[in-house]
Amino acid sequence: MLLGKVVGTVVATRKEPTLDGSRFLLVRGLEADGKPTSSLVVAVDAMGAGVGEVVLYASGSSARNTELTKDRPVDAVIMAIVDQVEFDGQLTYVK
Amino acid sequence: MLLGKVVGTVVATRKEPTLDGSRFLLVRGLEADGKPTSSLVVAVDAMGAGVGEVVLYASGSSARNTELTKDRPVDAVIMAIVDQVEFDGQLTYVK
Amino acid sequence: MLLGKVVGTVVATRKEPTLDGSRFLLVRGLEADGKPTSSLVVAVDAMGAGVGEVVLYASGSSARNTELTKDRPVDAVIMAIVDQVEFDGQLTYVK
Amino acid sequence: MLLGKVVGTVVATRKEPTLDGSRFLLVRGLEADGKPTSSLVVAVDAMGAGVGEVVLYASGSSARNTELTKDRPVDAVIMAIVDQVEFDGQLTYVK
Amino acid sequence: MLLGKVVGTVVATRKEPTLDGSRFLLVRGLEADGKPTSSLVVAVDAMGAGVGEVVLYASGSSARNTELTKDRPVDAVIMAIVDQVEFDGQLTYVK
Repeated sequence: MLLGKVVGTVVATRKEPTLDGSRFLLVRGLEADGKPTSSLVVAVDAMGAGVGEVVLYASGSSARNTELTKDRPVDAVIMAIVDQVEFDGQLTYVK
Repeated sequence: MLLGKVVGTVVATRKEPTLDGSRFLLVRGLEADGKPTSSLVVAVDAMGAGVGEVVLYASGSSARNTELTKDRPVDAVIMAIVDQVEFDGQLTYVK
Repeated sequence: MLLGKVVGTVVATRKEPTLDGSRFLLVRGLEADGKPTSSLVVAVDAMGAGVGEVVLYASGSSARNTELTKDRPVDAVIMAIVDQVEFDGQLTYVK
Repeated sequence: MLLGKVVGTVVATRKEPTLDGSRFLLVRGLEADGKPTSSLVVAVDAMGAGVGEVVLYASGSSARNTELTKDRPVDAVIMAIVDQVEFDGQLTYVK
Repeated sequence: MLLGKVVGTVVATRKEPTLDGSRFLLVRGLEADGKPTSSLVVAVDAMGAGVGEVVLYASGSSARNTELTKDRPVDAVIMAIVDQVEFDGQLTYVK
């Protein structure tokens, strides 16, 4: 999984029918110290995440292992909301 | 999924028989603010996307989770046409 | 899929038994304008491609969705020979 | 697999229900000589690894091939604790 | 698949039980002309490869399509020993 921060939303009316009702969120990658990386993905939200929240997302076929994404053309899913990151003995993120 | 813009087409007469009828589109990656990235993929079009449109595409095995691409040697599929991108509280793309 | 050009061959006598008879081709990635990228993969040839030809190749599990590669340890397969690339309204490759 | 070092932990109370009880560890990639790379992933711990330990982790669908991660939205798993790395004829890591 | 050279070994006593008996080899990526790249992976050896040998390895789920790696948490496998590489009309590697 990768650490990320929800930085926006994508609206798409025309989409694969199996994706009706899915929320697409823009997720910026985060370093261990909380700095943004250059990585940007659009993930389906399985957790009710909001803009600004720090999350974990899973990529590839693993992104289809939630009830919401099973058998759908989804390659990135938010599967956890992060409460706390400890890196090098220091808390670098607390919700 | 990744944000992309359809920037061209690829024609291939000789191809895996299971791909007969598939449209191959050149998709350039997009940043959240709409600037092109260096990423370039060829995706099968499951949405009737046109050149110039902003789309979402799914990669890897997830690209086979549409009726059009099931069990085919396809690792990228356009599965949504983007209407709107909101990034950092601003609309950075409106169709 | 990615655009590539066949730039060479790899011979391997000792290989997984299920790969007997497979041809391994060196494929250099191509930009939309036909310039080579730094990407280099070894793909199994499912199309009878020759050195110098422009091709599409699929990666990951999708590379196993041809008769030749099914259930084999193959993560890249040439699944189309490119006839024509149109990019930004211009033909950048014609066979 | 990739060589990595456990450099921290991620706590997430709200997560996919199938992930209850999973430990998320921050893993920094390592070069063959033990120097850290820029790669950072969050892996599920299948081995009881501790912060500071050098590990191997598997990514993608292969990360679901442990009892702990089967059918779960997990794309990185620690599947071995490294005792020793020999590179270019020299021991570059001994536990 | 990617071209690589075996540059070392990794010993791990504590590992997923299904991996007992697997040999982990450090594999450095190779360019078509035989120069090393910055890529480094740890692959399971399905071919009896030795340090210094030039090999092909498969990544992702395809790495599980050998008898040795089936259903195991393995995302890279050496599935061929390279005898010869021909690139741009020249033999750039002969065993």
